[in-house]
Amino acid sequence: MTTSSGRRTMHAYRSHHCGQLRGSDVGSDVRISGWVHRKRDHGGVLFVDLRDHHGITQVVADSDSPALAVLERLRVESVVTIDGNVKARAEGTSNANLPTGDIEVYARGITVQSSASELPMPVAGEQEYPEEIRLRYRYLDLRRERLHANIMLRSNVIASIRRRMVEQGFTEFQTPILTASSPEGARDYLVPSRVHPGKFYALPQAPQMFKQLLMVAGFDRYFQIAPCFRDEDARADRSPGEFYQLDFEMSFVTQDDVFNAIEPVLAGVFREFAGERQVTEGAFPRIPYRESMLKYGSDKPDLRNPIVISDVGSHFEGSGFGLFSTIVGKGGFVRAIPAPNTADKSRKFFDEMNDWARGEGYAGLGYATRKGGEWGGPIAKNHGTEGMDKLAAELGLGPDDGLFFAASGKELEAAKLAGAARTRVGNSLGLIDENRFDFCWIVDFPMFEYDEDAKKVDFSHNPFSMPQGELEALETKDPLDILAWQYDIVCNGVELSSGAIRNHRPDIMYKAFEIAGYTQEQVDTNFSGMINAFKFGAPPHGGSAPGIDRIVMLLAGEPNIREVVVFPMNQKAEDLMMNAPAEVSAKQLKELSIRIVGDGPKG
Amino acid sequence: MTTSSGRRTMHAYRSHHCGQLRGSDVGSDVRISGWVHRKRDHGGVLFVDLRDHHGITQVVADSDSPALAVLERLRVESVVTIDGNVKARAEGTSNANLPTGDIEVYARGITVQSSASELPMPVAGEQEYPEEIRLRYRYLDLRRERLHANIMLRSNVIASIRRRMVEQGFTEFQTPILTASSPEGARDYLVPSRVHPGKFYALPQAPQMFKQLLMVAGFDRYFQIAPCFRDEDARADRSPGEFYQLDFEMSFVTQDDVFNAIEPVLAGVFREFAGERQVTEGAFPRIPYRESMLKYGSDKPDLRNPIVISDVGSHFEGSGFGLFSTIVGKGGFVRAIPAPNTADKSRKFFDEMNDWARGEGYAGLGYATRKGGEWGGPIAKNHGTEGMDKLAAELGLGPDDGLFFAASGKELEAAKLAGAARTRVGNSLGLIDENRFDFCWIVDFPMFEYDEDAKKVDFSHNPFSMPQGELEALETKDPLDILAWQYDIVCNGVELSSGAIRNHRPDIMYKAFEIAGYTQEQVDTNFSGMINAFKFGAPPHGGSAPGIDRIVMLLAGEPNIREVVVFPMNQKAEDLMMNAPAEVSAKQLKELSIRIVGDGPKG
Repeated sequence: MTTSSGRRTMHAYRSHHCGQLRGSDVGSDVRISGWVHRKRDHGGVLFVDLRDHHGITQVVADSDSPALAVLERLRVESVVTIDGNVKARAEGTSNANLPTGDIEVYARGITVQSSASELPMPVAGEQEYPEEIRLRYRYLDLRRERLHANIMLRSNVIASIRRRMVEQGFTEFQTPILTASSPEGARDYLVPSRVHPGKFYALPQAPQMFKQLLMVAGFDRYFQIAPCFRDEDARADRSPGEFYQLDFEMSFVTQDDVFNAIEPVLAGVFREFAGERQVTEGAFPRIPYRESMLKYGSDKPDLRNPIVISDVGSHFEGSGFGLFSTIVGKGGFVRAIPAPNTADKSRKFFDEMNDWARGEGYAGLGYATRKGGEWGGPIAKNHGTEGMDKLAAELGLGPDDGLFFAASGKELEAAKLAGAARTRVGNSLGLIDENRFDFCWIVDFPMFEYDEDAKKVDFSHNPFSMPQGELEALETKDPLDILAWQYDIVCNGVELSSGAIRNHRPDIMYKAFEIAGYTQEQVDTNFSGMINAFKFGAPPHGGSAPGIDRIVMLLAGEPNIREVVVFPMNQKAEDLMMNAPAEVSAKQLKELSIRIVGDGPKG
Repeated sequence: MTTSSGRRTMHAYRSHHCGQLRGSDVGSDVRISGWVHRKRDHGGVLFVDLRDHHGITQVVADSDSPALAVLERLRVESVVTIDGNVKARAEGTSNANLPTGDIEVYARGITVQSSASELPMPVAGEQEYPEEIRLRYRYLDLRRERLHANIMLRSNVIASIRRRMVEQGFTEFQTPILTASSPEGARDYLVPSRVHPGKFYALPQAPQMFKQLLMVAGFDRYFQIAPCFRDEDARADRSPGEFYQLDFEMSFVTQDDVFNAIEPVLAGVFREFAGERQVTEGAFPRIPYRESMLKYGSDKPDLRNPIVISDVGSHFEGSGFGLFSTIVGKGGFVRAIPAPNTADKSRKFFDEMNDWARGEGYAGLGYATRKGGEWGGPIAKNHGTEGMDKLAAELGLGPDDGLFFAASGKELEAAKLAGAARTRVGNSLGLIDENRFDFCWIVDFPMFEYDEDAKKVDFSHNPFSMPQGELEALETKDPLDILAWQYDIVCNGVELSSGAIRNHRPDIMYKAFEIAGYTQEQVDTNFSGMINAFKFGAPPHGGSAPGIDRIVMLLAGEPNIREVVVFPMNQKAEDLMMNAPAEVSAKQLKELSIRIVGDGPKG
């Protein structure tokens, strides 16, 4: 600020922020404001770490300083403005960990902006603290270095996603939050209408209908950092209440177009914030669902794990080994999970894997050990060296690679056990490279599956995806052989989202539902909004909706979603800071034409 | 797309979009997809305007084309893919209004992507259509040119605001949507909690508490394109239900800092989208509240209107003119509203203004006419030429400028009538330049006012604003003389938002509330969340929250908010397209421990 006389006047609160001053500022008169982060009394000289959003600056007050008495009296986390002079720190007292570590500000004056009471939790330091206290005093917890950094990361990630989506030709639209029930299948949050007694809005579980209607309305490429609401119980990776997704949809596109549009966005964001960690180069691998279930025992494979599962049932067909031979003979499945370089692992390592599998409710996990080409363990004994060598050759195993076996009469059970064993073996052998983000697409999901309980064909995932081959496939192929234009995006074993090329044709939709046992009338009744819109000219379209919270959790390395959300609810869906949910007045209930059943206050 | 053999294969739906082809493309084989916007049959030759998000391309099919029969049969708004060849339009048939107007695509093949049924409303053309139909079939209405452009404008405005806020050093945070009642004073939307029977969340009326807590948490500059919810009845410029604001807050700032941060954002956005229209250059005028009420008769002045009101009571003090003299003698007010260049206006023009004022419930609007310096009309007659000349000289009136007079015993009533007359005179004389966006700040709002009904001093606007002079002012000044660090931003007479430097000091807050007649206990009870947070170290902070919908309405020149919201509710707070609000199942009500009172379905 410059006065009319041309002299520079000082800003009321800061000439510099607390992360700004450097050696080159030595000698300057400055004003800085912030929180008293730490105080250290060195016998008549007080050192204060003054903290703001941008950083920390060391302030010094000695007995000549009028600030000394004030700073001595103030509690940490009080807010002050310091007028002072920048000095070089004494030889050997620089702090290389701090950008401002070469200087300190000698306090010549102080203004107390806000005097702190005794704190319910500490801010300086990162010691663990009970979550209930942290959530109740979230504004204190948010001052702590790690959480502050996580929340800034989240904001920067979202800003980067927005910029990249716009660069890809997408436009952001805000879809309604007060709306009708969506057909996502989870439980809705309801909002009673005052104007229409007895009726309710629902908060959107996802803007699925709206984004498809935007395509029907002729907007080409939609996206939204969309708040979504599901009244489901909390999990570590899911907030109770609300969460955010990068919702997007595109018209006149094939599956390839969707992949080509979103891969650079995700890879770019991850590369921007991954630091030293590596991100999948080039096009993300596209793994058909059946291949993923076979090779990784999961449709959410962690590709950082180098272990690949093989189907080895044919090796045991009519073999001398009773158990596997019997399973295969009855049409069952045997999957092999290599355990690389386990020559020096004790019997206990292998037995514990077997115990773990039994603990998970499976029959067990067979194994063969190998050391310098020598086989060991019960299955090798039964199957014989020749058979084992043949198996090892087919799987490309080295002379010190052991093997686990997952067997079951049911393919899905064999696959799941093999997949869980793959993860467990990979983890215990330390095979997971924590410095990588490995993306892949899972594609070619089956459109239908046989429902053993209902003894009928039903949709296996999303009834609204376009079947590959469209109407012709539905009319001519075995339903269980029909694949859908449906895809998941997975990173490090975490499913970021499902997506699909949508079925935009009422005729194909009626036919798909007919195969799953529904009449046209049932479809019209349950999905009238979408079906009707499609009858007035709908473009082919598709999209997906990667989870924002999960992306930030991956980048921050945080397993708990509450560490990457600025004001989260606790696991009981309470906001302890704002005291929500709370009781409301009888007048409010009356206006909404509702009353509470049971023990609550009466309306 | 390129195949492995190196030959270019055509995309499934489009080699070009419908706004892309130019004269330079003549001769190319292309594929375009879109909606059949219009069909014109020129006797065996069919012309089709094919429309997508990007534009319109003329498609031609003659009797040699296999597309002819298909296009003849299809209804408008069907979606097709056309394979064809780009041809130059015949001499004299180019369409200069269309970027693709020099070419047409001769259709050699067609694929029907979606066949349209008969439409409930037309898309081509912009004829008026009943709002209920437009809202029920919003996805059709959104295909129309004006609404489509409005919604794109809205998205682009918001993207521009985001970019500019980030450039100003702000960071966007998402604050909770399921939260507690906010103290904004309007009616909350409530959300019953399933997990905590009898308790309710509230949707935020604004993230006021959260943004202030973000400042307390040490984040320096927050913004959010924030959804806000108020269960109030609809107005033209306010949606029932939800609306968006550019919510922002800054720490360690004075009022000047807030203005300096946000002026370039608003001016920049307006300049970017104003087209030929002019936007306030340089710093926005800062008009003290009292000055605005005097000169413009409003705290939302439309500065495009050149008319400035003057207080002329002293001219009538003890004057011969009975009515005004009596009013002034009793401490009342007389305000003069010039009517420039009205020499040729008939008596009717002036009398109708008087009638209008009476219709509005005022005693009337006096006037004096003037033509070539000659006075006319009752007030001039009574006040005399000499007095009128003196008045005109003081007001700087020209010889053809008439005058209206608003008089009342109450200052606010005189000001309001004068303000309304200023607007009416400006409009009828065509003095409002529609090609300008004139911004200003209204500053120096009084902190307190005298409540005539309650016979006590009360807050005049926001109790949480910092009083100018802080604690000392509260302790030493007449409360009615104390101003607040509170400001409105106004554009063309539309209030975009209120804002303030907040009171972050519990001691000053208790004192301010004491002046308004509240005890410390009452403050602690009603505002415990904020007061408690301020006790653990709060920075000085302030902000504002310009309304996004209003900004877009101004730029789009739309008086109705539903023309700038993609999926709005109607004035009865219904979403006719999604059928919301709607009845819910007894099971849902039971899960939420509520039942409906009255005629609705029973829980």
